Amino acid sequence: MVEFNDALLKSGVLIEALTYIRRFHGATFVIKYGGNAISDSDEKDALVSFAKDVVTLSSVGIRVVVVHGGGPQIGEMLGRLGIASQFVGGLRVTDSATLEVARMVLLGKINPEIVGAINQLAPVAVGLSGGDAGLINVSAAGGDLGFVGQVESVDPQLLLKLLNEGLIPVVATVALDDSGQAYNINADTVAGAIAGALRAEKLIYLTNVEGIYSNYPDLSSLIRRTDSVELAKLLGSPSIADGMIPKLKSCLGALEVGVGSAHILDGRLEHSLLLEIFTDYGIGTMVVK
Amino acid sequence: MVEFNDALLKSGVLIEALTYIRRFHGATFVIKYGGNAISDSDEKDALVSFAKDVVTLSSVGIRVVVVHGGGPQIGEMLGRLGIASQFVGGLRVTDSATLEVARMVLLGKINPEIVGAINQLAPVAVGLSGGDAGLINVSAAGGDLGFVGQVESVDPQLLLKLLNEGLIPVVATVALDDSGQAYNINADTVAGAIAGALRAEKLIYLTNVEGIYSNYPDLSSLIRRTDSVELAKLLGSPSIADGMIPKLKSCLGALEVGVGSAHILDGRLEHSLLLEIFTDYGIGTMVVK
Amino acid sequence: MVEFNDALLKSGVLIEALTYIRRFHGATFVIKYGGNAISDSDEKDALVSFAKDVVTLSSVGIRVVVVHGGGPQIGEMLGRLGIASQFVGGLRVTDSATLEVARMVLLGKINPEIVGAINQLAPVAVGLSGGDAGLINVSAAGGDLGFVGQVESVDPQLLLKLLNEGLIPVVATVALDDSGQAYNINADTVAGAIAGALRAEKLIYLTNVEGIYSNYPDLSSLIRRTDSVELAKLLGSPSIADGMIPKLKSCLGALEVGVGSAHILDGRLEHSLLLEIFTDYGIGTMVVK
Amino acid sequence: MVEFNDALLKSGVLIEALTYIRRFHGATFVIKYGGNAISDSDEKDALVSFAKDVVTLSSVGIRVVVVHGGGPQIGEMLGRLGIASQFVGGLRVTDSATLEVARMVLLGKINPEIVGAINQLAPVAVGLSGGDAGLINVSAAGGDLGFVGQVESVDPQLLLKLLNEGLIPVVATVALDDSGQAYNINADTVAGAIAGALRAEKLIYLTNVEGIYSNYPDLSSLIRRTDSVELAKLLGSPSIADGMIPKLKSCLGALEVGVGSAHILDGRLEHSLLLEIFTDYGIGTMVVK
Amino acid sequence: MVEFNDALLKSGVLIEALTYIRRFHGATFVIKYGGNAISDSDEKDALVSFAKDVVTLSSVGIRVVVVHGGGPQIGEMLGRLGIASQFVGGLRVTDSATLEVARMVLLGKINPEIVGAINQLAPVAVGLSGGDAGLINVSAAGGDLGFVGQVESVDPQLLLKLLNEGLIPVVATVALDDSGQAYNINADTVAGAIAGALRAEKLIYLTNVEGIYSNYPDLSSLIRRTDSVELAKLLGSPSIADGMIPKLKSCLGALEVGVGSAHILDGRLEHSLLLEIFTDYGIGTMVVK
Amino acid sequence: MVEFNDALLKSGVLIEALTYIRRFHGATFVIKYGGNAISDSDEKDALVSFAKDVVTLSSVGIRVVVVHGGGPQIGEMLGRLGIASQFVGGLRVTDSATLEVARMVLLGKINPEIVGAINQLAPVAVGLSGGDAGLINVSAAGGDLGFVGQVESVDPQLLLKLLNEGLIPVVATVALDDSGQAYNINADTVAGAIAGALRAEKLIYLTNVEGIYSNYPDLSSLIRRTDSVELAKLLGSPSIADGMIPKLKSCLGALEVGVGSAHILDGRLEHSLLLEIFTDYGIGTMVVK
Repeated sequence: MVEFNDALLKSGVLIEALTYIRRFHGATFVIKYGGNAISDSDEKDALVSFAKDVVTLSSVGIRVVVVHGGGPQIGEMLGRLGIASQFVGGLRVTDSATLEVARMVLLGKINPEIVGAINQLAPVAVGLSGGDAGLINVSAAGGDLGFVGQVESVDPQLLLKLLNEGLIPVVATVALDDSGQAYNINADTVAGAIAGALRAEKLIYLTNVEGIYSNYPDLSSLIRRTDSVELAKLLGSPSIADGMIPKLKSCLGALEVGVGSAHILDGRLEHSLLLEIFTDYGIGTMVVK
Repeated sequence: MVEFNDALLKSGVLIEALTYIRRFHGATFVIKYGGNAISDSDEKDALVSFAKDVVTLSSVGIRVVVVHGGGPQIGEMLGRLGIASQFVGGLRVTDSATLEVARMVLLGKINPEIVGAINQLAPVAVGLSGGDAGLINVSAAGGDLGFVGQVESVDPQLLLKLLNEGLIPVVATVALDDSGQAYNINADTVAGAIAGALRAEKLIYLTNVEGIYSNYPDLSSLIRRTDSVELAKLLGSPSIADGMIPKLKSCLGALEVGVGSAHILDGRLEHSLLLEIFTDYGIGTMVVK
Repeated sequence: MVEFNDALLKSGVLIEALTYIRRFHGATFVIKYGGNAISDSDEKDALVSFAKDVVTLSSVGIRVVVVHGGGPQIGEMLGRLGIASQFVGGLRVTDSATLEVARMVLLGKINPEIVGAINQLAPVAVGLSGGDAGLINVSAAGGDLGFVGQVESVDPQLLLKLLNEGLIPVVATVALDDSGQAYNINADTVAGAIAGALRAEKLIYLTNVEGIYSNYPDLSSLIRRTDSVELAKLLGSPSIADGMIPKLKSCLGALEVGVGSAHILDGRLEHSLLLEIFTDYGIGTMVVK
Repeated sequence: MVEFNDALLKSGVLIEALTYIRRFHGATFVIKYGGNAISDSDEKDALVSFAKDVVTLSSVGIRVVVVHGGGPQIGEMLGRLGIASQFVGGLRVTDSATLEVARMVLLGKINPEIVGAINQLAPVAVGLSGGDAGLINVSAAGGDLGFVGQVESVDPQLLLKLLNEGLIPVVATVALDDSGQAYNINADTVAGAIAGALRAEKLIYLTNVEGIYSNYPDLSSLIRRTDSVELAKLLGSPSIADGMIPKLKSCLGALEVGVGSAHILDGRLEHSLLLEIFTDYGIGTMVVK
Repeated sequence: MVEFNDALLKSGVLIEALTYIRRFHGATFVIKYGGNAISDSDEKDALVSFAKDVVTLSSVGIRVVVVHGGGPQIGEMLGRLGIASQFVGGLRVTDSATLEVARMVLLGKINPEIVGAINQLAPVAVGLSGGDAGLINVSAAGGDLGFVGQVESVDPQLLLKLLNEGLIPVVATVALDDSGQAYNINADTVAGAIAGALRAEKLIYLTNVEGIYSNYPDLSSLIRRTDSVELAKLLGSPSIADGMIPKLKSCLGALEVGVGSAHILDGRLEHSLLLEIFTDYGIGTMVVK
Repeated sequence: MVEFNDALLKSGVLIEALTYIRRFHGATFVIKYGGNAISDSDEKDALVSFAKDVVTLSSVGIRVVVVHGGGPQIGEMLGRLGIASQFVGGLRVTDSATLEVARMVLLGKINPEIVGAINQLAPVAVGLSGGDAGLINVSAAGGDLGFVGQVESVDPQLLLKLLNEGLIPVVATVALDDSGQAYNINADTVAGAIAGALRAEKLIYLTNVEGIYSNYPDLSSLIRRTDSVELAKLLGSPSIADGMIPKLKSCLGALEVGVGSAHILDGRLEHSLLLEIFTDYGIGTMVVK
């Protein structure tokens, strides 16, 4: 009796999932794997779980690009090296010494850890920075922030070549300006810009919240599905935390240029990626145009 | 609380299924859709459910060939036309008039019904007979059975061409001998021969039993997984019904020439194909070499 | 002396024929093989001769599609099953029982006979119905004719795939509407619609008359070559028999959408296909735009 | 009545010819167009007729290479320039001045005339010498013949490239040795060597006789079809004229390395090429292995 | 010390040359190899040096077409054959006898010598005339010049096919009119027309002067680089010799239809081709649009 | 006068260089860009010069892979972080903290600097580590050296994919073992292993010496060209410095598995790469098998 119910339930999940697998075969997903997600406790397990989901997506024919930042780890290494930071409007000023550390941590520590976790399962991840083969061109973001860059353009050729070979690019958010000067850039913004340049089917932010709330902190106000118009209205409301703003702006920008949908998920929940992508009900917030 | 369990359970089914989807991408499955399965009550619903499963398999990159017979329907049409049948050793003698009816029913009634049910969902099925483009070459099976044929050879070129185009061949088991004479052939045998010629990953019999039993009619003796050696031992035992014998012999033959595994499933259980293929535990009997 | 004349004559035929072979290499011909042609006496011989011509055309690089009906044989089988027919305006009303028989006869009897005759010479024919892979979409022709369909659209993809593989599709004129309901359709109309969808070089009707007469029954008034304008004028005249009307309308429609020429030939004359195609003078009536 | 016989006769020629057209589609024929054929009266008409046949063969998918010599015309130009010739064993000694004239006549007079005649019908002929792109490598034939060469090797790459583009190479029989020195070579031998290097289906000599006679000058002893063994026996007999010997030796050599058949035809008979190739009975002598 | 300077100098030349090699990879150069260049003393050495340069260009990925005339050699052969020439306005009238000689000399003497010289180094040259595969279509130039042709059109297909195979076409300037009549054509004009039809990167004239002078015979007035406008002004000035006029007009015409640049070089200076193409300063006169 | 000599000299260098450019078109060069070369004074200029040479090689069709280490910079960063090092047999023990720093410096500092310098000229460089897509598999080198790895295998697929796209992989010598643990590896060894896996035409070490000396410190004993046998003899002699030993052993290993030649050059001399590759005399030491 139990077994029969089990069969019914399994076939239900299967039929549901297979619909999405079919629909997304060959589609491109850009996934922002957040600094916060990495820095929470149980980091190692979360990374392994994330790697499993990414390899699974790739193995059923989805073209995955991972974008990551690394704020907390940069701060930690600056501390170890005794490099003090100035802050302007709550943002860290990135002088030459800070930039050197940021680049070392992003390219030399976080990126190879994500690449390594994926490649333990299947040797398909390739670490990249925005400086590789002209991938991201930046300029100074301005203000007094120093070497904090803003995206001028994304040349998706290198990503397309690697995706066509069945590989998973993992992009660290350091890039160069026209003079060859390196800059650190906000990873949420980079993810949106890459999704736009690739006309991705999905732009997914893995965060440490369940999604977007219409009336935070009322957890029952979690929004399952919304659209650009509604999201734009929410942007000014107190329900949206500061850290969420670049994500939501990037979502809107990406939807504007043709990305199919944007998602805010809780990266701490195991397999949240699969549950969001392969079930009707999903697990976080989905935004469509 | 309930939702969390639900998520866990769903992600469990997903992870399990995705493993198989990945493994079987590009693999070929030959599925015998049985006369018995068709003739049972709720025939129409069962056919629609079967068509859904077949289209789903195809849409996740599995190359599916369907083979069907049609004993009961042939008998019915012979009755309507007042054509009496002789039986030898329990088998119907196929004289010229009987053959004409068998061909009409298989090619002109059952085959277009299966093709039509699939094409209602996605226009990918193509009806074939063994006489198309030299697909199956037969000779007289002998005895006094008349135009009952035995498979001499299978030329898989036509199937490969259609599979390469993303189409689903649906094969009715009528074929020609060297002189152009038509014969009716046992569909279980044809399914095994085609699976062998295609070096299929799976040969699947959809029947009206749950699988093979080691000690029939003790239903708790259902065998989940066995191998050629054990199956060969079982073949002579009273636990194997007469109608099952051509299936099991075809399984053994197909495994011998390189087919990956053979399966006996209950076609009456909705989505039994998906449950057998995409879950660890399966639903029927799986035979490996 | 005789031999020299022979050489001159042979080289004359050769030079003439080679011109057409060169011109038609890679061209597509849609040939309607008529119910009347099949049902005349010496049917078997005529079918073998037709099969030879078709294989010859294919072997010199012409892409051939055969379309067939089967009115007389359907009537015969209805009689054997004791199914009475109603007639409206001289046309048989196709109720559910009649449709079942029509489909069985077309797909299960006539189609495999034509396919078998060709495949005896070279295994290149593949039997199709309009329901295969979405080939023909129909709707009810209306009136009180029941399941008599009219062509809504032809999707030539399946034909093109088979032609590209060097195969000869043989199409029986049963097809499905959007709801999956089967219909019988006039084979002359189907041939014209397929020729149009394929932008065929030639649409050829094999009939039991020599061609079109400007003043029937004066046999000396046989028209060798005419054009759409002249043909349209003839359509209302008493010189055109009722059975010829759907053919001629289909010719006009096909020429309208880009088919190169349409031909009415006597299928009873051995090798009439070759004589029409490969000689300057031809053998029947050719209509150009 | 007459017309019916005409149809029968035409369809007979057609069926016969179509068999050969089918068989030779994509096959390579090397045709030696003889100096004697060119120098006979009505030269211009014969060349036009030859060009028509060659273009016709090419247009039905046969890959044609033409090889030509030009003995008589070289002699004439030597006379005009007042260059006397020495003869050794009946062969003209080719000193430096003679070679210069031979090359001018072959490459600058005969070759462009043949190329021009073909290109008047279809712009597909390309004039070549053995010195182009390393086509033919020669060495001195020895004796006291001066710059008379013997074929060391044929590199068919250039021919294959042109044939693959649907072009007809017309080869003049001048070639270079390893030091870059030019030589004149016997055209019959070159034709055989090229046929061998291309593994041609046919090597055809157009001459001014009807074929090979078993008992010359008894014209009734013309051999229609023979094989290597019989031909080798004939080689020493008085029935074989001196001028025929290099042809027959080249035939034997070509058959030895895999050429399908060799033919000796009368180039003076209009369309003899077509009659030999596309009729069962042929017109000259065919030699098989 | 010497060696260090040597290294500096070598690396300077290398860096300079590599820039051009990179830029011209895959580009097409049409090189007119002049009658005068060939007829000067040391002819053989000059031809070998020219062949080396051409093979070198080809080997670094430049697609080279050589065009040549042969005025002096034609005159010499006419003399040997005692064929007197009439002159109209300083130009030789080309009657039928003269044309025959011109064709023999161009196709049968000069062309194979150039082809042979190149093929001694690498077997990549193929001799062509304008009559091959419809390469050049001409009409009578008019006046009373007889068979002197003017270019009506160039069909670059044959050249493109050979260039795509890595071969070097060497074109003799004889071509046919629509009726198949041969004509001799000015080689400077042909070179320009071919460069235009190929949208060549460069059109290069190898002559027996260093380049264009603004104030001939003042050798210090050699122009290194100029443009169409300036060149057009110069055309009427006494500084331009008569023999240079067709070259300069062809340069202007070629630049007009998209050729990148035109060059007038001294073909007598060893490796002048390489020095012009691969150094910043060049060696002759370069004209751009 | 001066100019004429200049032309002669330039054409001499050109002819010499073009020979090598032709020969190496499509060939693969693996270039070890040494830690010492980077750390010398005028580092920035040297890197720009190196980048120019690499881009130049790539632009003339040579497939370049750059491998780099970074010993001095790792030492400096360890110092800044106050991490003391133990030494065993003169080699630094790499504990977990040291490895973290090594990885950060190699992947996050040196690699992006090299990549950035190249991409300033042309956006073709892509930074890689041995952990990307399974490029290098290592195991512990053993002794008490901790996370110092030795190469187990190189999978050249990722390199080949990037090279096929015209990109220049720049490889930092960090890699993973089967358990996913990272290791630092000797860059000289990695360069040799990659050259071997790619069957490279050349393996080039850019160092801070002019080449190999047969009798160091006698600078006049610089070896221009030698072979494996002679090099093996030299290996034990006092003329070979310790730091040179892994290079020479890697040279021998690479030559053994099919690399065409190995080179030791002075990376401090501007354009030493071009001078070694494109001149007959070269600039450093070349070792052939």
